[in-house]
Formats: sequence, C-alpha cells, structure tokens
Amino acid sequence: MGEDGAQQPPRLTVALLGAGTVGTQVARLLSENADDLLARVGARIELIGVGVRDGSKVRDGIDPSLVTTDLDELVSRGADIVVEVMGGIEPARTLLLAAMARGSSIVTANKALLAEDGATLHDAAAAGGLDLYFEASVAGAIPLLRPLRDSLAGDRVRRVLGIVNGTTNYILTKMDEEGADYADALAEAQRLGYAEADPTADVEGFDAAAKAAILASLAFHTRVTGADVHREGLSNVTAADVAAARDMGFVIKLLAVAELSDDERGVCVRVHPAMVPRTHPLAGVRDAFNAVFVEADAAGQVMFYGRGAGGAPTASAVMGDLVAVARHKVAGSRGPGESAYANLEIRPIGEALTRYYVNLQVADRPGVLAAIATVFAEHGVSIQNVRQDGHGADAMLMVRTHLARDAALARTLASLREMDSVRSVIGVLRVEGETS
Amino acid sequence: MGEDGAQQPPRLTVALLGAGTVGTQVARLLSENADDLLARVGARIELIGVGVRDGSKVRDGIDPSLVTTDLDELVSRGADIVVEVMGGIEPARTLLLAAMARGSSIVTANKALLAEDGATLHDAAAAGGLDLYFEASVAGAIPLLRPLRDSLAGDRVRRVLGIVNGTTNYILTKMDEEGADYADALAEAQRLGYAEADPTADVEGFDAAAKAAILASLAFHTRVTGADVHREGLSNVTAADVAAARDMGFVIKLLAVAELSDDERGVCVRVHPAMVPRTHPLAGVRDAFNAVFVEADAAGQVMFYGRGAGGAPTASAVMGDLVAVARHKVAGSRGPGESAYANLEIRPIGEALTRYYVNLQVADRPGVLAAIATVFAEHGVSIQNVRQDGHGADAMLMVRTHLARDAALARTLASLREMDSVRSVIGVLRVEGETS
Repeated sequence: MGEDGAQQPPRLTVALLGAGTVGTQVARLLSENADDLLARVGARIELIGVGVRDGSKVRDGIDPSLVTTDLDELVSRGADIVVEVMGGIEPARTLLLAAMARGSSIVTANKALLAEDGATLHDAAAAGGLDLYFEASVAGAIPLLRPLRDSLAGDRVRRVLGIVNGTTNYILTKMDEEGADYADALAEAQRLGYAEADPTADVEGFDAAAKAAILASLAFHTRVTGADVHREGLSNVTAADVAAARDMGFVIKLLAVAELSDDERGVCVRVHPAMVPRTHPLAGVRDAFNAVFVEADAAGQVMFYGRGAGGAPTASAVMGDLVAVARHKVAGSRGPGESAYANLEIRPIGEALTRYYVNLQVADRPGVLAAIATVFAEHGVSIQNVRQDGHGADAMLMVRTHLARDAALARTLASLREMDSVRSVIGVLRVEGETS
Repeated sequence: MGEDGAQQPPRLTVALLGAGTVGTQVARLLSENADDLLARVGARIELIGVGVRDGSKVRDGIDPSLVTTDLDELVSRGADIVVEVMGGIEPARTLLLAAMARGSSIVTANKALLAEDGATLHDAAAAGGLDLYFEASVAGAIPLLRPLRDSLAGDRVRRVLGIVNGTTNYILTKMDEEGADYADALAEAQRLGYAEADPTADVEGFDAAAKAAILASLAFHTRVTGADVHREGLSNVTAADVAAARDMGFVIKLLAVAELSDDERGVCVRVHPAMVPRTHPLAGVRDAFNAVFVEADAAGQVMFYGRGAGGAPTASAVMGDLVAVARHKVAGSRGPGESAYANLEIRPIGEALTRYYVNLQVADRPGVLAAIATVFAEHGVSIQNVRQDGHGADAMLMVRTHLARDAALARTLASLREMDSVRSVIGVLRVEGETS
C-alpha cells in the first residue's frame, strides 16, 4: 500500500440475503455501528446488496438502491462475506453453495438448513478455505456456539441441556403461571406474534430438534442432523399435567438434551417436555427466553441465558460472526472449521438415562400398590416417590422413578397399561434436572 | 512435508509456569485429552517444562523430569505457548515479557497482573504478533471474555453486572441463609478453603475490582486498570443489613458493575455490596458460583453462570485458550489483539446512576419524616419507598430511592447525618437490578 493507500482502510463487501425482522436489524447495525466496526475489524464493511423475495416492500433503514430480487446475481458478485437470514432449505442452500464457489465466506442464521444438510455446507467451506459461522442459528443473542466450539475446546463436554425454543416456553409459562390450557396459551402466543399461524415447527419440537442437532454436533465433534434427534412435542401436555407438576414442586419445560453415552462412543439427542424441579435454574426461565446448560468434565456446569429470538438479538449474533469472519479476511486467515473427528454413534432414546413421572388411575383396593411396585421392579426401575389419593372406587397414583434406561421405563409403562387394576395412564413425563 | 512427514502431525510446545491447583489440572488435561487435542488443533501439544517455586514437592500426574525451579531458563526455551498460572505481579510479568520476546504466545489466568499492567503485556503481544489470551483470569470456567470480545463484537455493550468473587458470595450466602454474622461466615469460608488466611483481596473487593477492570476493558474497548475501579468491600455489611434486606425481598451481593455513561464517552467501573431483588437471577447465585449479566443494545441482556474458581474449572478456561492459540500457531495466524480504540474516559463513582437504601434511626416526633423527605428532595433524589417502625422515643426509618447520581445520593446522606432528628445512620447500601 502506498502513501495514499495508507489513508484508506481496506474494504470488505457484504451481501445480505433476506430482509425480514433479522435482516433489517443487521442492515441497521452495519450502518449505525460502522465506525466501531471499522475500528474493531480494521476494515470498512460495506453492504453491497440486499436480496429479498418481494422487491416492492419498503424496508426501514435499507437503501432501496441496494435491494434486489435477483438473489443469484447478488451472490454471483462474490462479496467477501454473504450473510444469509432468509431461512428455509431452498433456495438458501443453493445460494450459499454458489456463494462459497465464488469465494465468499458465510454467516448464517439458518438452523433448518444446518440441521438438515450442514455437512454439505461444511464440506464446501472446507474445500474453499472459507469461514462458515452460524452463532445466530441457535438461541438468538446468546453466545453459545462460540463457547462450545472454542472456550470448551480443551475440555470434554458430557451433556447439553436447555430451553431453546421461545414459543413453547412462552406457552408453558402461561400454562404454569395462569393455569391456561394448551390451546388458549397457544392462541395467545399466536396473537402476540410469538407463534406462527402454523405452529407445528415450534410446538412439535422440530425447531428445538434442529438446534439440538447443531449443539450436539459442536459439543461432541460429530455430525448430528435433525433426523437423528428423538422428538416429542408439546401437544400432549395438559393443564392437569402442569398443575400436577406444580403440586410436586416442578415446572414443565420443553427441553433439548444431548448426552455423551457412558461408554463415550455414542451420543443421544432428544427434545421432549420434561418436569424440572422448581429450584433448578431452568425453571426460572420464563416466556420467550432461552437458557442452556453445558456440563463438561473440568468446567462443571456452565449456563448461558438470554433472548433466544427476535430481530435485534438474532442480529447481534449475526454481527458478532460477521466481525469474526471480517477479521479473518483482513488477516488472511480463517477460523476453526467443522470438527467432526469423533464421529460418535447416534444412540436411540431407549439408551438415554432418565426419570419418569407416571400418573395412573388405579383401582382403590388392597394390593394394587404392591402389584404396581412389582411391575417397576421387574423392569429394573427403582421408585423414588409415590403419592396416592383415593377417589371413591378409584385412586390416583403418582410415581416418580429414579434414573433408568428410557427403554426400561417405556417397557414398565407398557406393562402398567396391561394391568387390570390400572384404569388408565393419565400422564407420563420425563423428569430432568434432579441431582440425586 | 514429505511422505514420511505426512505421518507425523506437527508438534507445538507448551511451557507451564505454576503447578498449584490450576497448573496441576492443566497438566492433567493436556495428558488425558491429548488425542482429542490433536484432533481439535491439528497438532500434537507437548508439555516441555513445568516451572515451580518449590522443586521438592511431589505433584500428582506431573512427570518429575519436567519440573524445574529455573523459570527464566524454562521461558528462554522459546516454547510455542507459555501458560502462566502462578499469579501475582512479579516474577510473572518479567517472565511473560521474556517469553514474548522469545516469540512465545501467552495463555494466562493472572487477573492481578492484567488489571495492574495489562497494557505492557498487550503492547508486547502486538509488537511480536503474538496471542495473549486470558479467559481464565475472570470467572473461572465461565466463557465470558470470548463472548465479550468476539460474540458481541458487532453490538454495543451498555453494562456489565455480575458476581465475580466466589469467596464473598459464599460469605453473603451464609449470612443470608443462616443469619450468620460476617465474622462467623468468613471464619467458615476460611475453614473450608474458600477464603485465604488473609482474606483482604477478596473481602475488600480487590479481586473483584481486577476482574471488573478486565471485563470493562473488553466491553468498552478502553484500557481500564484495577486502580480505575471504585471499590468498597464487604466488611461493613452486618447481619442486620442482611436481615433488613431479606425483609424487603432483597439479598445482598458483592457486585462488579461497569457502565457506559449516558454521553457514551465515559465508563464507570465499581465494586461494592448492593441489595438485589430476590426475583433477579443474580439473587439465586449461591455459594462460590459466579454469574455475569451483559447488556448490549441489540442483544439485550445475556447472562453467563458457572463455577468462578477452583483448579479444574479454571484449567478448563486455560485449555480453551490454549486450543485457540494452538490453532492459530498451526494456521500461522493470530486471534484479535487488544481493542482499546474507544479510549473512553474513566468516570468517578459520583456520576454513576444508582439507587440507595438508607436505614436511619430518627426521633419519633411529628414532622421528622417531612423534614427528612425534604432533604432528599433538595438534593434532587426521589424517594421510592419508606417504611417507619416506632420504638419508644425513636423510630427506624427505611428509605429506598429512585435512580439518582451517586454524588447526589452521597450529598443527601451527608445532609441527613447533620440533622438533629437523625440519631444515626444504621445502614446504607446501593440497590441494583431493579427494572423500574
């Protein structure tokens, strides 16, 4: 660089794909924080185009001359960094692969794509010597992927346990605090914009499963896809379950759990509602907030908490990645790529160690409790706690178990359902977050 | 690299300074996780020496042939990475500067040195194109510095608020939960090894102030030293203060607070005991745990929680840094260096916006409350809440204020002390973590 060149900082170009709630915030932060970004990166970051589906919409704070509906053309310009916040599998995948073929590094918030086909993206990034950063894909503003990938990189992660879907957490908070039933709580979440008109991705756990897959991949250095995740949604959780949990000092949360197996050669990843003791820090995570516990051999338990969604929080995570990738571009380096060397087996839910809470309607006659306790024992499941309430000819029996293989718990349940003295199985929930 | 060379991964050398509770854990993790480290870094990490003060001590899991008391000689070997976990200002500073002069990158847990003279270390790292990483210097295992430096690098941090000293948090937890008085709680902390024989660094807030300085430097891109931090210790907190706080739904915590000023040109950093509402997440941080809230414009509030001290947790943070620095060595790059471009002014405590809780013993006669309320008003301090309990001729008056400049609150207090009707000022505490 000559004398004149020294006056001008280098310049990095950014193409933004998507200008919805996240994209408009990214554009705003790029503009408002331009001077700080220059100082922090050592280069001026210049937005060269914003790709959208509908070019006729006015977008606050985005220069209309930057907006284009020709996403292929935008990507073909070979920006230093392509930021993808449009979501969905296609055309996002094709666009990102085209961008990497042109030498662009990638910052994306696309959890669905990463969970479905992250391998293809990672391979393309590795082949091109490019960065692929995706902090915003899980838990919005909460720095979670970087700590997993970098901060705990010298430790051995055993378990990741968290609330990673704000919509379902909002619904469960309403049910817990206001006694709302599921349908009403969902309707209110929809009214407030926390839930989509079609809430399936959230309430059936697909969104949480995608995030769990991404977290598990990083934590265990293994490729995990959304399809590898055992998934149970929220739609079977009743107001009665929530009330019963409350009576026992628990709250129901939709949890994402990823665990290293005892033999350290497998990983089990699951998303399901679970009862959490009200004294556990996750119990206090309300409304649309997210929180994730990471348990590692040396670090012990570490928790991360914050806003898991929303335009500005998600944009904050995108911007952090953008600064990291931009710094690498300036230095001519790249960050750590995918780490999947451990290549652990994906283990079925049956191998998970968990606890069950079972609520049974049983005949209220002598010997029934003994018979039921025998069924648990026959399957090797140890009972932690029993509560029985008589109601005329029937009684309610609430059983909490100690830790056991999920398969043994499931078999116990199947046997209980076959017993004459068991009128019906009213509720079944896993219990997480107990220490003893 | 030839055909034979391809069989052998590259090798990076590490010299470890210090083999106390943290150092022995670092040595253990280097050995136990060697294969994972190789896969994660792409190089074999080899410990070439462990520098100690007392060479005669046996150290579990450390090969005695690696141990040396000649720290200068160890550093002169020019290891790729020098890990410093000995603590204290000297000889650590001289050794780290000598190591950087030899081209070694640095991983250190030395908060005292960083807070006293971080600038000298950062300058040496920049001059040598070397990494200087120090995640372990604040909040043990909790990934906190990397999120501040990287994840939030595209956002604007407004405030950092946290519990960063486990010893004082243990003492305050005992006082709150068991009604212990300060001296007894301290004695128990000493008995359990949570507090040193000379507890000054912890209970007078020096340790927390060093950590606050490090956090503020990163959050606000400004050099902040321990001496820049307003510091009040724990020794004036009485069992009566704790009980009064409890009555009002608060708990007392030793907080580290770093805030951007309203005009965005200054930063105020302070460590002091404060009342925190029992509903605030920091209120639930018990015993030797740490937790830090970071508030940024786009991200909103993000919280980090975990073990703030101890050999293995601190070693986990050291190892994360070691992996990052080793990856850079393999790639021939380095991580982001010091960022101090903002160069904000250090503002005095008087400019901080805070709330006071004041407990007064006053004459129980007509007009006293009015006179006292007038004093607050004259200093521009708005009262949020008053409680008065009569006790014969005297009354207890507990006042909580709205947000005001600390200087105005201090002047109010001075005026109150001069009033005839105020028999004594029994307790004064700042209040943090209220949202309204």
